[in-house]
Amino acid sequence: MIIVLKPGATEKEIDHVMDRIKELGLTPHLSKGQERSIIGVIGDDRLIANQPFRAIPGVEDVVPILAPWKLAGREFKKADTIVDVSGVKVGGKKLAIMAGPCAVEKKELTVGIAQEVKAAGASILRGGAYKPRTSPYAFQGLGNEGLDFLAEAKKATGLPVVSEILDPRDIEFFLAKTDIIQIGARNMQNFELLKEVGAYDKPVLLKRGLSATIKEWLMAAEYIMSRGNKNVMLCERGIRTFESQYRNTLDLSAVPALKELSHLPVIVDPSHATGKWAMVAPLAKAAVAAGADGLLIEVHSNPECALCDGEESLKPAKFKELMKDLKKIAEAVGREL
Amino acid sequence: MIIVLKPGATEKEIDHVMDRIKELGLTPHLSKGQERSIIGVIGDDRLIANQPFRAIPGVEDVVPILAPWKLAGREFKKADTIVDVSGVKVGGKKLAIMAGPCAVEKKELTVGIAQEVKAAGASILRGGAYKPRTSPYAFQGLGNEGLDFLAEAKKATGLPVVSEILDPRDIEFFLAKTDIIQIGARNMQNFELLKEVGAYDKPVLLKRGLSATIKEWLMAAEYIMSRGNKNVMLCERGIRTFESQYRNTLDLSAVPALKELSHLPVIVDPSHATGKWAMVAPLAKAAVAAGADGLLIEVHSNPECALCDGEESLKPAKFKELMKDLKKIAEAVGREL
Amino acid sequence: MIIVLKPGATEKEIDHVMDRIKELGLTPHLSKGQERSIIGVIGDDRLIANQPFRAIPGVEDVVPILAPWKLAGREFKKADTIVDVSGVKVGGKKLAIMAGPCAVEKKELTVGIAQEVKAAGASILRGGAYKPRTSPYAFQGLGNEGLDFLAEAKKATGLPVVSEILDPRDIEFFLAKTDIIQIGARNMQNFELLKEVGAYDKPVLLKRGLSATIKEWLMAAEYIMSRGNKNVMLCERGIRTFESQYRNTLDLSAVPALKELSHLPVIVDPSHATGKWAMVAPLAKAAVAAGADGLLIEVHSNPECALCDGEESLKPAKFKELMKDLKKIAEAVGREL
Amino acid sequence: MIIVLKPGATEKEIDHVMDRIKELGLTPHLSKGQERSIIGVIGDDRLIANQPFRAIPGVEDVVPILAPWKLAGREFKKADTIVDVSGVKVGGKKLAIMAGPCAVEKKELTVGIAQEVKAAGASILRGGAYKPRTSPYAFQGLGNEGLDFLAEAKKATGLPVVSEILDPRDIEFFLAKTDIIQIGARNMQNFELLKEVGAYDKPVLLKRGLSATIKEWLMAAEYIMSRGNKNVMLCERGIRTFESQYRNTLDLSAVPALKELSHLPVIVDPSHATGKWAMVAPLAKAAVAAGADGLLIEVHSNPECALCDGEESLKPAKFKELMKDLKKIAEAVGREL
Repeated sequence: MIIVLKPGATEKEIDHVMDRIKELGLTPHLSKGQERSIIGVIGDDRLIANQPFRAIPGVEDVVPILAPWKLAGREFKKADTIVDVSGVKVGGKKLAIMAGPCAVEKKELTVGIAQEVKAAGASILRGGAYKPRTSPYAFQGLGNEGLDFLAEAKKATGLPVVSEILDPRDIEFFLAKTDIIQIGARNMQNFELLKEVGAYDKPVLLKRGLSATIKEWLMAAEYIMSRGNKNVMLCERGIRTFESQYRNTLDLSAVPALKELSHLPVIVDPSHATGKWAMVAPLAKAAVAAGADGLLIEVHSNPECALCDGEESLKPAKFKELMKDLKKIAEAVGREL
Repeated sequence: MIIVLKPGATEKEIDHVMDRIKELGLTPHLSKGQERSIIGVIGDDRLIANQPFRAIPGVEDVVPILAPWKLAGREFKKADTIVDVSGVKVGGKKLAIMAGPCAVEKKELTVGIAQEVKAAGASILRGGAYKPRTSPYAFQGLGNEGLDFLAEAKKATGLPVVSEILDPRDIEFFLAKTDIIQIGARNMQNFELLKEVGAYDKPVLLKRGLSATIKEWLMAAEYIMSRGNKNVMLCERGIRTFESQYRNTLDLSAVPALKELSHLPVIVDPSHATGKWAMVAPLAKAAVAAGADGLLIEVHSNPECALCDGEESLKPAKFKELMKDLKKIAEAVGREL
Repeated sequence: MIIVLKPGATEKEIDHVMDRIKELGLTPHLSKGQERSIIGVIGDDRLIANQPFRAIPGVEDVVPILAPWKLAGREFKKADTIVDVSGVKVGGKKLAIMAGPCAVEKKELTVGIAQEVKAAGASILRGGAYKPRTSPYAFQGLGNEGLDFLAEAKKATGLPVVSEILDPRDIEFFLAKTDIIQIGARNMQNFELLKEVGAYDKPVLLKRGLSATIKEWLMAAEYIMSRGNKNVMLCERGIRTFESQYRNTLDLSAVPALKELSHLPVIVDPSHATGKWAMVAPLAKAAVAAGADGLLIEVHSNPECALCDGEESLKPAKFKELMKDLKKIAEAVGREL
Repeated sequence: MIIVLKPGATEKEIDHVMDRIKELGLTPHLSKGQERSIIGVIGDDRLIANQPFRAIPGVEDVVPILAPWKLAGREFKKADTIVDVSGVKVGGKKLAIMAGPCAVEKKELTVGIAQEVKAAGASILRGGAYKPRTSPYAFQGLGNEGLDFLAEAKKATGLPVVSEILDPRDIEFFLAKTDIIQIGARNMQNFELLKEVGAYDKPVLLKRGLSATIKEWLMAAEYIMSRGNKNVMLCERGIRTFESQYRNTLDLSAVPALKELSHLPVIVDPSHATGKWAMVAPLAKAAVAAGADGLLIEVHSNPECALCDGEESLKPAKFKELMKDLKKIAEAVGREL
């Protein structure tokens, strides 16, 4: 950590900062510059990252040098993490395609869609049972019954299931009936929920918050991992910007950036990012070309009657077509579908 | 609601859209334009706001005409809401100043700060017992014991207490020991938590999410109010932008905008918005000038040793000085302190 | 255009709005709703888009229905525009790869890089002679002499040349010595410069502004096209967001969105978007997979000594390798390199 | 400047970085840390700010310590700059209120508005002659004739005039007919225009770019000042964010931040920031409370027929009322109107 002093910092102020650093068990190194003096602090940045050095008179700025995460970082673990989802490997050479309806509606519909996405080559079934909706008057999901329908679909197809948790009090249902617990964008910094899913070894799909930086996202992963659960997958799903032509702005730069900073698998969700089914295919292909380890794609057999997000859902035939194109892109970047 | 059709929409497509609208119990009115045709939909927009009309072939766009909220809106209730916080009125002519430490640390310190902010004219004590921290390695708050210290401070000073809840499982502690339950920025769309606090009539301070639009924020208020709790206060605390000179960008335009759209009281938190104590005073004054009903300000007797956010805390003497200036601004805009 | 009236709009107010519309030569259609009344305006939206209807008492909102552009839109011209750049076609099946140094430095260096990018398969040479730099103390480019060096490189390799103009007073130099005039991000709404390049038929590469919406960008293209120059190419180069892990956030959703809204070719610049050479290759591949018509890539034979943006430049060997990978992606999406 | 090395940087790589720094005439200081080593560079940061150190193998990051500006900074000049605008002082105890129509339309109208704003207490007349419009089909201003009308209004009232320049080729007109040359938000990084106005000593009102950081804004001021023109005033006019309830998000935190970093006067434009006349008064008051040195406010005698931005213009009677309120706020913060 580097502490930058104000141009007019007095000797007394500087001594006080030096003392404060020593009190914390660290070693300060003062370098006097022509216009600014700085103090280098040797020791574990993370221990002092939350100390309010900027509140001390004479201090202008504090510049951290070390990344604030540990377990989620590439430095801590060089090799790519491969998460085993009930037999399906996520993070290796083979891409993981997670597909299905935004919200689980009826049992037969859910099983039907599961069969179609499996036939097209998907390896994991997605479906929302508890739905976080902007409006309290919108369909809130079937809840626990929805998880049962997903379990039926798994029985019928063998596809492992991913579904989103909203409330820590529902954890037992999710442990019993899903293969991946999804933390949605709106809950990326719901730290109590992160701690809850961190207490088990059930795989977690951690979506990026609407305006979360890469750093905050990795720190959210760190919350889960520091509780013991190492099976974390990151999911880019678009960030909030000024552009209103599509629902969110898919940030594909996050894929190579995460691959450098972290060892965790990176999944991309082009459906929620764009909110428009016609944009899903080009961005799904782009995500694979950028190096993503998998995709989360909404598929619905009758989008115009879907109870949630029908506007961004692909019909099964379109999904099948996309899977063929993705196979070619995957091969072009040395991956498999 | 207006449904805008694509330029080349066929008769068959248009008929299908018209049928779909009638199925939903609403009345469509088709207007054929030179370049685009549109369908006006008479009836309650809110019932159909979540129907995926954009998924229907021939539809280009859907334009809502009614605001998506009801209970939180000025149209529903013309008069300003005044929330009674254990005798302190929030939303009337007199401004509500909520002050205290970011995090509750020790009993004596908490009581001491409470006495100082009371002496300076604050009417409510703020203090965090459960702290949402970006890093799992940072101080997470004293939890329930922190609420006890706040209760002690209330006993000593008579100041009602506001503190942030993170987990719906803690609701009983908050009902018993606080006067206002705060929903923090990171939980503004933690809908399960909103539903939980909506089930009681305990006043709620609802902070704006880091990248929440005014609409989403009012919809979060609607979640609480639609469960029965009408005692909601909104708190602007800065939004996330590209600017990195200060922690967040305080959005004071939200104050007059909310005053027009809603009847709920509006509080401003300049401390978290800026993250720098030297910027708190000018922005606190600006907030009052813009029409805010109150302020949330961090005060700590020894900021450089604070366990959380010391960099943005005012010392009691500075706070006292600020209160004097605020009195003048309040009078200049026809309010009282 | 739809004019939404306030809930309490009086008859007199409504009549006044109706009269105002008729004065403008348009036809108003009033629809009275349960909570809100609206007025549909038949006629060319574009004529009235700038009328201050919101300033009229009783008006709550104005919702445009038609896109504000004409010449740049897909409705105006269905077929993809293919721009002929001195024989190189941009916008057709074959991708256009524009590569070269950020800034032109020395004649030999420029010719050398041109020969290397040509050997690797690039079809157009990029190079900055006039450089827009954030700091007045940074290298500002060689100016007109730089354009001469580019002309030399063109003579040696046959590659057409693209370079950025900053000042309308330099137009003659650019007409004489370049094949494409680039309008940089910072000048996307420098309307006088747009009008100037619109007066000729020299191809223009119009970069997206740092925080320009798709609409504003197409309106900037409309400025050029409405002056007579139809040879416009759009270039996505990253937008400004809160994320600081990379210089800008490359918005690849813009590619399919523009392909739907407009007939103009779309180029992507992953070098400026990321500011980091190691991120250029994955995002270049993603851009082609998303449907881009070409790429703008910085190549420098000695990046660590480059006078501008060396940090994002690929060495010729890396560029050659990338071209091989791009060939595979191009084929996977039915394009050629 | 601090150069942070990658964890696995080799001795050879480190030596190469050290050599590169010495070649540039600077002195490197290597500090080996437990996880990261860093190199402190003594000397003028500004000389090397544009060196591509990140392109050198083994370098992870470069952290500047000194601000990149010089002349615009508070360190260079401690005392507040007071700009003399034809006798009206901007930046001192007395606030400068610049008011008038968005666009100059007719001579009589312009003179009439000038008389009204003067009567209400404004000290400078604003009016646009050359208008930067998003659409090429919108009213583009009267041009040079508009400047003549402003000159007439000045003759009639004695009010100095501020108007926006778009093209460096018009500089002579502005030098002859205006008292302040305005650089608009869209041209904040039109560096050729900045250099042009920097060549004279005519006062310049430099608006913040739509997504310009405080740093970039001060660097734009530095462009003007480094050419010799020290009479620069900064004008905050709202930044671009995700919020769409108002046109832009007025960033009042910029006022105290600029007051700390720079000695230049700070003006606030609540009219363009909000785009809604009803929000102008509360934000004008807030700006003065936050410490602004003046305001730029749109006033039009018949907003609903204004050719530009009528929706955000105050009628003269409303402006007069606002001026009375501003007087009270000014006094509350120790200023005068």
